[in-house]
Order: sequence, then C-alpha cells, then structure tokens
Amino acid sequence: MSNLAITPPHATSQAQPAGPADKGYAALRNDSFIKACWRQATDHTPMWLMRQAGRYLPEYCATRAKAGSFMGLATNVDFATEVTLQPLERYALDAAILFSDILTVPDAMGLGLSFAQGEGPKFATPVRDEAAVAALAVPDMAKLQYVFDAVSSIRRALQGRVPLIGFSGSPWTLACYMVEGGGSDDYRLVKSMLYSRPDLMHRMLAINADSVAAYLNAQIEAGAQAVMVFDSWGGVLADGAFQRFSLAYTQRVLAQLHRSHAGVDIPRLVFTKGGGLWLEEMAQLDCEVLGLDWTVNLGQARARVGGSVGDTSRWAKALQGNLDPNVLFAPPAQIDAEVARLLESFGPVHTDPHLSGPTHIFNLGHGISQFTPPEHVSALVESVHLHSRRLRQRV
Amino acid sequence: MSNLAITPPHATSQAQPAGPADKGYAALRNDSFIKACWRQATDHTPMWLMRQAGRYLPEYCATRAKAGSFMGLATNVDFATEVTLQPLERYALDAAILFSDILTVPDAMGLGLSFAQGEGPKFATPVRDEAAVAALAVPDMAKLQYVFDAVSSIRRALQGRVPLIGFSGSPWTLACYMVEGGGSDDYRLVKSMLYSRPDLMHRMLAINADSVAAYLNAQIEAGAQAVMVFDSWGGVLADGAFQRFSLAYTQRVLAQLHRSHAGVDIPRLVFTKGGGLWLEEMAQLDCEVLGLDWTVNLGQARARVGGSVGDTSRWAKALQGNLDPNVLFAPPAQIDAEVARLLESFGPVHTDPHLSGPTHIFNLGHGISQFTPPEHVSALVESVHLHSRRLRQRV
Repeated sequence: MSNLAITPPHATSQAQPAGPADKGYAALRNDSFIKACWRQATDHTPMWLMRQAGRYLPEYCATRAKAGSFMGLATNVDFATEVTLQPLERYALDAAILFSDILTVPDAMGLGLSFAQGEGPKFATPVRDEAAVAALAVPDMAKLQYVFDAVSSIRRALQGRVPLIGFSGSPWTLACYMVEGGGSDDYRLVKSMLYSRPDLMHRMLAINADSVAAYLNAQIEAGAQAVMVFDSWGGVLADGAFQRFSLAYTQRVLAQLHRSHAGVDIPRLVFTKGGGLWLEEMAQLDCEVLGLDWTVNLGQARARVGGSVGDTSRWAKALQGNLDPNVLFAPPAQIDAEVARLLESFGPVHTDPHLSGPTHIFNLGHGISQFTPPEHVSALVESVHLHSRRLRQRV
Repeated sequence: MSNLAITPPHATSQAQPAGPADKGYAALRNDSFIKACWRQATDHTPMWLMRQAGRYLPEYCATRAKAGSFMGLATNVDFATEVTLQPLERYALDAAILFSDILTVPDAMGLGLSFAQGEGPKFATPVRDEAAVAALAVPDMAKLQYVFDAVSSIRRALQGRVPLIGFSGSPWTLACYMVEGGGSDDYRLVKSMLYSRPDLMHRMLAINADSVAAYLNAQIEAGAQAVMVFDSWGGVLADGAFQRFSLAYTQRVLAQLHRSHAGVDIPRLVFTKGGGLWLEEMAQLDCEVLGLDWTVNLGQARARVGGSVGDTSRWAKALQGNLDPNVLFAPPAQIDAEVARLLESFGPVHTDPHLSGPTHIFNLGHGISQFTPPEHVSALVESVHLHSRRLRQRV
C-alpha cells in the first residue's frame, strides 16, 4: 500500500457548509453528520443507526409485504425511497443511508442472489474453484442502475433534510459470501481458498475492489453525499491475513473513489467489525471516518487514531459508533445511562468552528436488531441529543 | 477487583521439575508445557490443540459411536480416558486436556443438558427470569464425580508422559448458555438481562464463579496439573460490560483456586476469544497464561503483557495460541509457512534455564475443526517442533 504516503487533495480542505446545488438537489439543511466526518465542531453529536430502515419498524414490514420480497424492495425505486425515509419520519436522525444490500455487486456479477423467507442470502453459483474465479469480472454497472436510480430518488425526496450515505460491502466481505455461498459461522471455505490458493483469492479481491470502486463512484455521481465500506467480516481474519486480504483491498477501493462531486467533498467511512486491534493500520486508509464495534473503548480509540485539536493530518480519523444494539432491549432509563457512559468515554468534544479536532458520530456497533422496540429508539435519540449537548456546554 | 493488588504465594516460585508423586501418579517426564506456563525456558515451543480429542479423529468417532452420545462419552470414565489419550498416540503433543464439556456445571445445577444429533447443546430449563435466578445455587460437586473420576483415570493412564489440563467455562460463558438455552448468534436474551436487570446477572455470575472454583479445585485434587478457564464468549461483550460481567468473575474464580496440590504449583490459563483489546486488563488476572485468538499479533501481545527476561512480576504472562484452525485446510507446505510466520512473530525466545522470561505455548486460536484432515495435524506438529528448535539455535 505504497500509495498511502501520498497526501490526497482534500487533506486540508474544509467541508462546504451546504454545497452548490447538484442536479437541482436542495441545499443541505442539517450538515452535522458531514461536519463530524471532516472532524469539524457540531452543536450535538450527530447520529444515525446501521440498518435504521429495517424490520424493527412496522411501516418497513408493511412496505416489504407490498414488495413481496427483500430484492423486490431493494430493486424498486419507489419502495427503496419510501423505506429509506421511514426512520427519519420517526426519529431526529442526522443522516439517511441508502436502502440496499451489500450483495447487489456479486449478484450483478451473475452469481444469482436470492433471499429465502426467514433465511439469509444465498448464491446459486458460489465461487469455489479456479475456473469460477477466472470467470469473474467487474460487472456492467448498468445492471446496478436500480441502485443509482434509488440514490437519485432518495436524494430528491430528502429535500436537503439530512445527507444521504451510499455504501458497499468490502472486497473481502463480498468474497466471503461469494465463496461460502451465503452466511457462515467458521468461514471454512473462503479461508481454505485463502490459505491454499492465495493467488485465486487475490484475483477475486482485485476484481471485487474495482467493482466496489465503480459502484461507489456511480452512487456518488447519482447523489450520495458520503460513502461507507462495510468490512463486516474483516474481523474473522487472522492478524497478517487481515492486512493482506482485507485492508489492502479496502485501500484499493478508496484510492479509486471520487474525492468530490459537483464541487462538494465526499467523506468516506470504513467499518471493520472486530477490527479494534488494527485501528492504527486502518488509520492509514485514505478515508475520513472509522466505524467501531462495541468492543472498542471510544476514549482509547480516540487516543490511538482520533488526533488532537488542530491536527489536520490525514491519519487523524473521525470515529463512528459504537453502542451494543442489545442495549436497546433495556428500559429507557438504562438506555440513557449507557448512552451517557458512551458519550463520556469519548472525552471532551471540541467546539471551535475554525479548528478540526476529534469528532464522534453516534451509531450502534452493528445493525439494529429486528426485535428492537421502536419506542426504545426514540429514547435513544433523545438521550444522545440531551447528553451530547450537555457535554458541549461543559467544555 | 481490589484483590488484584495482593501478591499471590506462588509469584516468585519456580515450577518443580517433576514434582513429588501424588496418589502414586508417575513423575512427569515431559514438563515443557508446565515450564512454559511458568515462563521458563524449554528446548522447543510446547504445543497442544484446543479440542484435540475430537471429531476430526476417526478413532474418536468410533469411541463416540460405542458411547451412543456425547454425554455418554463424557460421563463414562473409560471412554473419556480413551478419547483423551487418542491424539497423544498420533501426535507429539506436550499436554493432554480432560475430555469433557463446559456445560457440565450448569447441567449439575439442574438445567437439563442435552445434545441433539447434529445440533449444539440445549438446556431444558433455561434461566430467564427472577425466579429462575433465585433458584440457582452452587451444585453438589458429587453430581460431577464422573468428571473427577475421569481426571484421576486419565492421569493414571498418562503415566507421566505429559501433564493433564483440567478446565471449565468462565462464569459469563456459562451464563450465556444458561440464559440463551443453547448457542446464539446475537446473545440477545443474555444481554437483555444484563442491561435490563444487572442485579440478576450479577447474582447468576457470582453463583457460577463459586461453582467453577469448586469444580476446578476438585479437578486439581483429582489430579489436574494445570487448569484453564474458557471465556469463549467474553469477546461478544461491549467494552465496560466485559470488565464488569466477565473479567471480574473470572478473577473471582481464580482467587479461590488452589495454588498448589501435593507440593506442586498449579498453573492457571485464561482464554477470552475476542479479548485482544483487553490484554492489559487480563494481565492483571491472578493467572499465569493468557490464551490468544488469531486476530492478535503474538509479538504485539508479548510487548503488551509478556514481560521481559528476568521479569518475575505477576502481570508478566506466558502466551498461548494462536493459529487460525482454518490454516489446517491448506496443504502441508502452506501450513509450514504459516507456522514459521507465527513463531517468528513472537520474536526471540529465551533459553536461560535460570531466568524467567516471555514464553509461547503453541495452540490454535480456537478449537480444531471437525473437518480437519488428521494428516495435516501431523504436518503442523512437525513444523512447530522444527521451527521452534531452529529459533532457539539462532539466539
């Protein structure tokens, strides 16, 4: 990853407050998430929730029932727009995230994605041998036009309320599903290929990385105002293998991404579940934000990779996370106590609008559970707003 | 955990080379594992494998078929002895580990353990409410006599070839199974109790800790020459919760354990899967060895908690681990390369018989897979012996 030594054009840039209108999109009214991505001060800790448009919301289930299937929902622009906006109607969230699935890219490669009722994703033709790897190629992005249409539609529907985050799975995470053919609890097949035939694995990961880069760039062109790479299974790799087979290809994606679009810089977020031990190496990535799962202490992560106030070096990262989604099964008083503890653990937040410094974007450490009571999410959002404003008054 | 400040009696002791005979047990001929536990020099890196007596061995499957069921195997002294010794017949391993299951303790509490064919463990009466927690108590150890009888039988059968490791699940790991009623992929029920009713969770964990301590002490009295606590699910906890709900109760176990038996010191090992971020806190535990999963870099772990040569402080820990079990699906040449890389990553090993210093016990980072080709384990053992002797010649 020798390109990590090159300073990117945006390293010293400031986020534009709202940005010039793009394709007639409305100017951004709540830019707290974008500001925090660029390590700029905000009046509260911005928040959104991974999988915020999901099965815990009855209105989501109603739309999904109309769509008939998960992919029916994801491929229909109107449905995808509707469910993306649903959590924003209920909760004071500071960002929207495209409703889609990380497996759209391998599906476009021809692997035949399906979601059986009550089960996880399945690929009809998993990639398990040399011939299957040789047949892989970066898919025609036209096959993913439904995603880019959804991005444009959601961006219009948002009318500038909050920014829209686009996303993709990481090259390694996609490879896990492509080789295993679905979920796994031991990653035996994909790791067997990795250790037995690293040449095949590297070829697959290079194709995945170039596919993901093209996919995220097309989302940016369609209107995504930030992009996030979900390295959901990076944390199952051994030390050493993680760096070679996950991190290097996430960097290959990042190196190809548009730095800005329509005159506005596009922040990039990377989340490796189980990646807490590798934060220093992840901080070398050409991105602005690192997502953290709940095993990581926020204050320690800040000390390791969050930089200081006034630090504009590119390895000073904004941090996103990291409440255990299971906290949301506790009563509101306990949720409030856990939120207060989490925000406190990050430490004092900077409030100088002229300096960049450590910032925290509140999120869960993983996707919200389908069993979450929706009213507990209301309590969560209130607690984050209350305590994060109080923290700033104390500075 | 204020008791962590107390220096234990064994802190400056040296392992006895073979130990006086106990109940007529033969003197120990291969003490490399025990020496490495005490951070003493050995002529090679001692090794054993988590779940080394298991389904990847055809002879194990044959004995299990005779026993009729997993619990039939675990509760029959002759069968348990037979399968414990099977891997030692095939491979030059440096320790034996009692064949049993971590769920014997909650079974003795009356929760009704069963293993359905092809499925994981199930409890007939999981612990999910205040009444169920109130009914819990430290079980009568007589109900676990079959385990202690197996320990004595195995110890006799070993005839001093290698030491016998006894073990238990950690209080938190047992609580996961007790509340969930079996395996889980989100730990929703146990974490809901933890966050909603921490009082109930603390009560359950205190009972589990006292039960585990009594259980391990009885194993020591029966002949176990080292004991290991498997905190298999500590790593699913959030930072903060891990310290309060897992680590504190592992320490409560350790504080109650016999330091020595029949004149021989008993080393204690703790393995938290996914615990790499908390090594400094785990190093404060009153134990000798920390087990590591494959996400941890051995050299970094050594720098953090392994101490230096001549360091006799109690927080200088021996390290055990940490090859990804999936490496064993690769051909022998790749296994050899991964073993060499792993041993190198630990760094130079000390060879002075008069000083304590950083030591490494080779193991996998988790239990061996049932799909492992047995001949690949032969290749693994040869590689560990070859490379670890070569490393010592280089010093």
